[in-house]
Amino acid sequence: MKDLYIADLAGFEEGRSFDSFFLVLHKQQRTTKTNKPYLNLILGDKTGQLEGRIWDPADPRIAREFDRGDIVKARGSVSRFDDRLQMKVEQLRKAAANEADKTDLLPATTLDVDGLWRDLMGFVESFTEPDLKRLLTAILANTELAQAYREAPAARQLHHAWLGGLLEHVVSLLKLADRVAPHYPILHRDLLLTGVILHDVGKVRELAWDVGFEYTVEGTLLGHIQMGMALVEKTIDSLPDFPPRLRTLVLHMILSHHGKLEFGSPKLPMIPEALVLNFVDDLDAKMQAIATEFEKSAREGKAPDELTGKVWSLDQRQLLNTRGWLDGEE
Amino acid sequence: MKDLYIADLAGFEEGRSFDSFFLVLHKQQRTTKTNKPYLNLILGDKTGQLEGRIWDPADPRIAREFDRGDIVKARGSVSRFDDRLQMKVEQLRKAAANEADKTDLLPATTLDVDGLWRDLMGFVESFTEPDLKRLLTAILANTELAQAYREAPAARQLHHAWLGGLLEHVVSLLKLADRVAPHYPILHRDLLLTGVILHDVGKVRELAWDVGFEYTVEGTLLGHIQMGMALVEKTIDSLPDFPPRLRTLVLHMILSHHGKLEFGSPKLPMIPEALVLNFVDDLDAKMQAIATEFEKSAREGKAPDELTGKVWSLDQRQLLNTRGWLDGEE
Amino acid sequence: MKDLYIADLAGFEEGRSFDSFFLVLHKQQRTTKTNKPYLNLILGDKTGQLEGRIWDPADPRIAREFDRGDIVKARGSVSRFDDRLQMKVEQLRKAAANEADKTDLLPATTLDVDGLWRDLMGFVESFTEPDLKRLLTAILANTELAQAYREAPAARQLHHAWLGGLLEHVVSLLKLADRVAPHYPILHRDLLLTGVILHDVGKVRELAWDVGFEYTVEGTLLGHIQMGMALVEKTIDSLPDFPPRLRTLVLHMILSHHGKLEFGSPKLPMIPEALVLNFVDDLDAKMQAIATEFEKSAREGKAPDELTGKVWSLDQRQLLNTRGWLDGEE
Amino acid sequence: MKDLYIADLAGFEEGRSFDSFFLVLHKQQRTTKTNKPYLNLILGDKTGQLEGRIWDPADPRIAREFDRGDIVKARGSVSRFDDRLQMKVEQLRKAAANEADKTDLLPATTLDVDGLWRDLMGFVESFTEPDLKRLLTAILANTELAQAYREAPAARQLHHAWLGGLLEHVVSLLKLADRVAPHYPILHRDLLLTGVILHDVGKVRELAWDVGFEYTVEGTLLGHIQMGMALVEKTIDSLPDFPPRLRTLVLHMILSHHGKLEFGSPKLPMIPEALVLNFVDDLDAKMQAIATEFEKSAREGKAPDELTGKVWSLDQRQLLNTRGWLDGEE
Amino acid sequence: MKDLYIADLAGFEEGRSFDSFFLVLHKQQRTTKTNKPYLNLILGDKTGQLEGRIWDPADPRIAREFDRGDIVKARGSVSRFDDRLQMKVEQLRKAAANEADKTDLLPATTLDVDGLWRDLMGFVESFTEPDLKRLLTAILANTELAQAYREAPAARQLHHAWLGGLLEHVVSLLKLADRVAPHYPILHRDLLLTGVILHDVGKVRELAWDVGFEYTVEGTLLGHIQMGMALVEKTIDSLPDFPPRLRTLVLHMILSHHGKLEFGSPKLPMIPEALVLNFVDDLDAKMQAIATEFEKSAREGKAPDELTGKVWSLDQRQLLNTRGWLDGEE
Amino acid sequence: MKDLYIADLAGFEEGRSFDSFFLVLHKQQRTTKTNKPYLNLILGDKTGQLEGRIWDPADPRIAREFDRGDIVKARGSVSRFDDRLQMKVEQLRKAAANEADKTDLLPATTLDVDGLWRDLMGFVESFTEPDLKRLLTAILANTELAQAYREAPAARQLHHAWLGGLLEHVVSLLKLADRVAPHYPILHRDLLLTGVILHDVGKVRELAWDVGFEYTVEGTLLGHIQMGMALVEKTIDSLPDFPPRLRTLVLHMILSHHGKLEFGSPKLPMIPEALVLNFVDDLDAKMQAIATEFEKSAREGKAPDELTGKVWSLDQRQLLNTRGWLDGEE
Repeated sequence: MKDLYIADLAGFEEGRSFDSFFLVLHKQQRTTKTNKPYLNLILGDKTGQLEGRIWDPADPRIAREFDRGDIVKARGSVSRFDDRLQMKVEQLRKAAANEADKTDLLPATTLDVDGLWRDLMGFVESFTEPDLKRLLTAILANTELAQAYREAPAARQLHHAWLGGLLEHVVSLLKLADRVAPHYPILHRDLLLTGVILHDVGKVRELAWDVGFEYTVEGTLLGHIQMGMALVEKTIDSLPDFPPRLRTLVLHMILSHHGKLEFGSPKLPMIPEALVLNFVDDLDAKMQAIATEFEKSAREGKAPDELTGKVWSLDQRQLLNTRGWLDGEE
Repeated sequence: MKDLYIADLAGFEEGRSFDSFFLVLHKQQRTTKTNKPYLNLILGDKTGQLEGRIWDPADPRIAREFDRGDIVKARGSVSRFDDRLQMKVEQLRKAAANEADKTDLLPATTLDVDGLWRDLMGFVESFTEPDLKRLLTAILANTELAQAYREAPAARQLHHAWLGGLLEHVVSLLKLADRVAPHYPILHRDLLLTGVILHDVGKVRELAWDVGFEYTVEGTLLGHIQMGMALVEKTIDSLPDFPPRLRTLVLHMILSHHGKLEFGSPKLPMIPEALVLNFVDDLDAKMQAIATEFEKSAREGKAPDELTGKVWSLDQRQLLNTRGWLDGEE
Repeated sequence: MKDLYIADLAGFEEGRSFDSFFLVLHKQQRTTKTNKPYLNLILGDKTGQLEGRIWDPADPRIAREFDRGDIVKARGSVSRFDDRLQMKVEQLRKAAANEADKTDLLPATTLDVDGLWRDLMGFVESFTEPDLKRLLTAILANTELAQAYREAPAARQLHHAWLGGLLEHVVSLLKLADRVAPHYPILHRDLLLTGVILHDVGKVRELAWDVGFEYTVEGTLLGHIQMGMALVEKTIDSLPDFPPRLRTLVLHMILSHHGKLEFGSPKLPMIPEALVLNFVDDLDAKMQAIATEFEKSAREGKAPDELTGKVWSLDQRQLLNTRGWLDGEE
Repeated sequence: MKDLYIADLAGFEEGRSFDSFFLVLHKQQRTTKTNKPYLNLILGDKTGQLEGRIWDPADPRIAREFDRGDIVKARGSVSRFDDRLQMKVEQLRKAAANEADKTDLLPATTLDVDGLWRDLMGFVESFTEPDLKRLLTAILANTELAQAYREAPAARQLHHAWLGGLLEHVVSLLKLADRVAPHYPILHRDLLLTGVILHDVGKVRELAWDVGFEYTVEGTLLGHIQMGMALVEKTIDSLPDFPPRLRTLVLHMILSHHGKLEFGSPKLPMIPEALVLNFVDDLDAKMQAIATEFEKSAREGKAPDELTGKVWSLDQRQLLNTRGWLDGEE
Repeated sequence: MKDLYIADLAGFEEGRSFDSFFLVLHKQQRTTKTNKPYLNLILGDKTGQLEGRIWDPADPRIAREFDRGDIVKARGSVSRFDDRLQMKVEQLRKAAANEADKTDLLPATTLDVDGLWRDLMGFVESFTEPDLKRLLTAILANTELAQAYREAPAARQLHHAWLGGLLEHVVSLLKLADRVAPHYPILHRDLLLTGVILHDVGKVRELAWDVGFEYTVEGTLLGHIQMGMALVEKTIDSLPDFPPRLRTLVLHMILSHHGKLEFGSPKLPMIPEALVLNFVDDLDAKMQAIATEFEKSAREGKAPDELTGKVWSLDQRQLLNTRGWLDGEE
Repeated sequence: MKDLYIADLAGFEEGRSFDSFFLVLHKQQRTTKTNKPYLNLILGDKTGQLEGRIWDPADPRIAREFDRGDIVKARGSVSRFDDRLQMKVEQLRKAAANEADKTDLLPATTLDVDGLWRDLMGFVESFTEPDLKRLLTAILANTELAQAYREAPAARQLHHAWLGGLLEHVVSLLKLADRVAPHYPILHRDLLLTGVILHDVGKVRELAWDVGFEYTVEGTLLGHIQMGMALVEKTIDSLPDFPPRLRTLVLHMILSHHGKLEFGSPKLPMIPEALVLNFVDDLDAKMQAIATEFEKSAREGKAPDELTGKVWSLDQRQLLNTRGWLDGEE
């Protein structure tokens, strides 16, 4: 098991030795000015990334064969370049199966995934509309899909960009949507919650998360909206007598959830449930982005009553932590 | 009291006589082709508008002096022009004070205004933050303002465009915001609810609703955001020891509630409460606009499973009534 | 068979009698000023539309039961209102099956549909890529779909808005794309032509053309891009061993063919064939719109060297007929 | 007094000693690669900024306590890193009060502030509209405000970003507006000049300039438009019998002076004076930005007939110095 | 000479006879419901337009041959249709040459054209830069061009849309630019004034004003910017030793004077004189549009302290007449 | 003759000596930290750029006088800084005339320029419209212009940014347009091809390519559209009896070929030929940009079935090589 993390190295003095398990995110052969070959690595774990240098790739203590995506055990020492931490790698071998846990090696939700899953299934259980209930039951009963749904990040780098992020985001949305639904009697609660559960299901195919978080080529060419619709359409078509109009509405919820053409939704929300889905999805993503931004400010040593820097994903606005600022008043 | 409404006339045959109280929305002197002067009126009540013609203004049964904004009692008969209903006015006098109720003469909320007001005051009562509580108490204790707050429409013609519409919109928002607030522990509930109560308070000065719904000249030049801020600033400055930072946050909530510069908010929401206020305000206005649109479709004789026409205020999209459509499936 | 068309009536004097077959596009009961019920109709054939009035619906020579979408035989006489032609309908009965040809009753391509279809099949025949060939063969072998593909208009009212318009547009594009393809050796000709044939296939479900040209509710909620992709995906999934990457590319061609997010393509063209498809599709639609505009100008009596009016679908620009203008020079 | 400026150091050879007064703009503790603590400073004066390093913070010649915002006297020697000038600080103490003049330590107007102020007061003196005259007299008689108005920069980094820049910009605008006003008899000169004097008055609270030029948190949340309006409203409300309509117009001038919603003006200019204010303000800011750009080009060694680089604040256009270019023609 | 104008007819009773000279703006043959041919005319003079009907074109008192663009003398009587004035034409003949003055028949400047022209020539006289002086002298010495420059409207329907409007606009701009120039010593006054005189010179070819105000086909295809540049280039190329760089700057002034690509200037202003030209041109056009709007409001019977309607050419804003509003305060 | 290129140096070891001819793209005097002057050069040839350092400018083996734009012969050795190749220059002299070929020193088309020119002239030869034929013959007979047309790049850095790029782009467009023209009988082929040949002719004056590729000052102020129109207008005006309407159309083709106002075309295409020119020009530029992007990806070591990076000039989209991806499927 892994007991030393990249974040722990910050306080290490120059030259101190250590070893740990890492995921190889990048591997490249380079040459020094005197034309000697060396290897440049980017190693990662759930707390961050670290540049590694292997100055003597022919050393017998360095594995011959390892590649991007492998989990390795590496030993070496701390060095610094331009105030940036590096690792001088002296020994390296591939990890045996199960020697290390992948959830230690990529950023992951801090919540309990089994609990989140139970929450999700509880919402499905609460449905009174039988067709939507059997649709969701059928989709989530697919074990391969369910496993991916539990693991997938919600995005590559904006909000909820960690393992389990998709599930975490969906469960938060389910709770929020379930609070909002009774306020508008016109809303079909089960259809709204179905939209919440399925709107981003295509992300399990749009994104790959075995080595860092990346878009697949298929994901880049088709997008999660289209991939999710295809997946849901296929399941519906396998269910006998699924009402055609309900099918259209479920697909419309997925298709329109980004809310605007220029955000990649080819149709605007045209039913109340689709409008509400777009709002709660957008609100939850922004509230999560704000929380992330406040954490980042704190990490960078800003006082609780200072404004954050300009936030790119929120139209370059700066943010202020309400309580931090009020508490800072003399 | 008024017992006949404009909407009731639709079924009247040509030439039938009737009388009722109306609000004079427009009055203009014209001449016929043979150069005889006549009066053209637009008369209104809470159910709609009606064109009226006085062919003989010198008739002693027609009041000499009446004007736009007056409540009148008129007697005449139904005529039609191009399938459009007109009234041939034969007698007209100004109504005595209290002879007619203004709420019969302009569109008004169907909800109980006293009940809505109690709801509003109940939310203020629930505050735990003492400074916000005394701010709202001070504002709402101003009887002139409170009266205007109870009467004002929320808009001239988009959502909640009726007497009491502002209060109805605010109470709906309070309930919605109170549902959303516990979902995000970072939120300062009382600040959020303060923003809900005060965000549109400037509309009591931006709009005039004694004769139809119109913008005042001052409202057009300054806008309700600025007028509301000025009103709140003045009250805060009259309260001893109101915390300056809390003052800034309350004003920022009002200033940023439209969410975008191009919608007239000179600042984007920069605290979580302002972001949530912008979302719930926008969502509630859109949900109300959707409800209005479905009613309009029904009035125009569309089937419950038909799409509405293109809705100008919702980016020209068409809307579909979820249940109406699902129920229409054979 | 129909031997008199609406366009022929323009020269008829007031009161002249005639009869013909028409499609009932609209039917509404109204009342006269004296409260007598009458029927207002909109009748259509492939040359235009005509308002009809049945002043005595109880007349035994008027069919009791007929409705929007029915083909009827009507006899009556010409009247005019505000320089607009009307028909005073005196006899009306539903047409027997096959008494009239629907292609006489809606605007339709002036080209030979069988010939266009042979052109299309000839292009498929010419493919050297076997998987794309069997995909298209499978899709076009579906007789219901093939029939719809031959009949569908390409749009409700912009370019090629007539029966057979989709096929006409596609065959024009095939010929154009086949001219362009050899110019760029990088292009995969069969993939490009596949994109041409399938890019708008969803229009057979997005649009309905039995009574006028309208969007279906499903079409409005999902759009032809999504409907076409679903149709193609389903066929591909029924073909054994279709290469997954080729499948992705075919779907990407459909998904991206509008070329911009704000035009409803949720992905930009990312392969050369998709880029070329977007260009030729856009060019052909615009060239067709220009031709339509020149015809309209001629019909309105403009000289061949005059500018057209401002064309809404072409960014409000005016157009000039090159040869007409050059020939007009003294 | 300060007799050596940062700009003077450019020609100093490596290692040469010097001392002077500086403003501490930034102070941060760091560690060397061998984990020894050192201090990194950014020192400023009115001619620029200089990085400073204190390698031995424990040296008794280095003051124990000093902070961002302090004026210090420092002695040390020139070093260079990557062609960038640094100071190796060997002695440092806090300056005594009045030992150095703050106007030497921040960029400041090169014009005579007292003269500018007299110009401003002269314009007020020239008013014939008594209410506007007493309004401005009241505002400018507030000594705290008047002092801030004389000191404030007009912006953080675009045009007139130096001490006294606000006053310099306003006086330039007054002269320009006074030239333009007689050209349009419709203009109310005193109202226009009132708008000029008050349009940016909120900047005295939006910006802070004691240590560099920064936005205050309140300024970021509310903006100078809102802060200026509040200040003016409060003064007006303290004046007996100020005409309400004139009050609205003065506030509208401030509110609309950015000219477009997306530039932060929640209302467009609706009176001629507001339109002219927007134009002259925009023109003067752009002309000043052009002058700054030509100076920058000269400083960077460009010939007088070369184009400048792309100017970010002027839509990325390049600029050309008319006379420089004409004179450069052989 | 013409002594009765269309505006005078407003007060005429039905049936009253009159005669006057008119410009035929439109002539079209139509048929009555009973298929009798009649002529429909639009007649104009400088005060407005009037619809005319010739019910018996074969009447010997009606000229056989006349056409759009002809000046005619017509006699007839007043009739009204839908409150709109018409003329029943009973006699009509073509006017002899010089019988009527074209400036009575199209809207024209109320200023003295000879005086404006002297103002313009006075500015040219004042130039100290000899090359610009001889350029302008050469252009304005072209009598055909000078005549067109004196007559041309500045636009078809926005600002200064009347005969002499171009000259009126240019002289106003010259005076304004001459006020602004000394404020910025960097400005090359003669180059700025050259830009003012030449920026719209292409309008003499873009527009035709012999019959109403219309764009020529060439004007529509090329635009006045391009037409003006071509005209100026040709003149410069005919002048010996005109400095090439000065030539480029003069052309750049014309090319960039609309200030933005989307307004039809393919280059942004890149020299200070071009920037100032764009500002004063835009300001003067807007101030003129505001004046026109206030006149229109007055004509429509609005009170001087009412807002105008929404002004399409000014981003839909409403306008307020400062003095009218202030004076209206009780 | 040059027999060693910058691209060849990549594999050279540190310190190896070499010599070759280079173009001096940039020359700047600097000083070392110890204040010793040295020269910093940027040297270029058709394969790339190389930084050079002359540490002892006083060395008699270094030419006294040479400047930006000169061709030099330099001898020195390879050094590296931050993995970036540098040249330590030890000897340098100016090249004699004809010692080196400028086409070796700037990137140039790989196609045969004489062949391209014959293709171009062949198209002109094929014209049936005599006026367009004599126009093009007259323009291309100008030897100075013809020489520039053969040499000019099509752009500074986007598509076809190499010597001969303009001619290469035009010939590709001629072939493409000649394929498209027969598809639309409405098109005037010779006018379309005339537009192709002349649309970018102004680039021979907008760009300078003797030392790198740069915009001239005149080019920046006026742009190639205006410069090309002026050149064509002048030629037309020298041809007796050129039809005025044809002249307008040719100019309109040039003026509108960017297709949108915001792309610098002050008029939209208004004739079919202009529309087609805009399409084929845009398509050809994008197809060339795609080809360049695939080459760049290959050079950077990406696999043929990987997506490219985000392409700035194509709206940040990523691209995929169709065949590379299909072939990469296992």
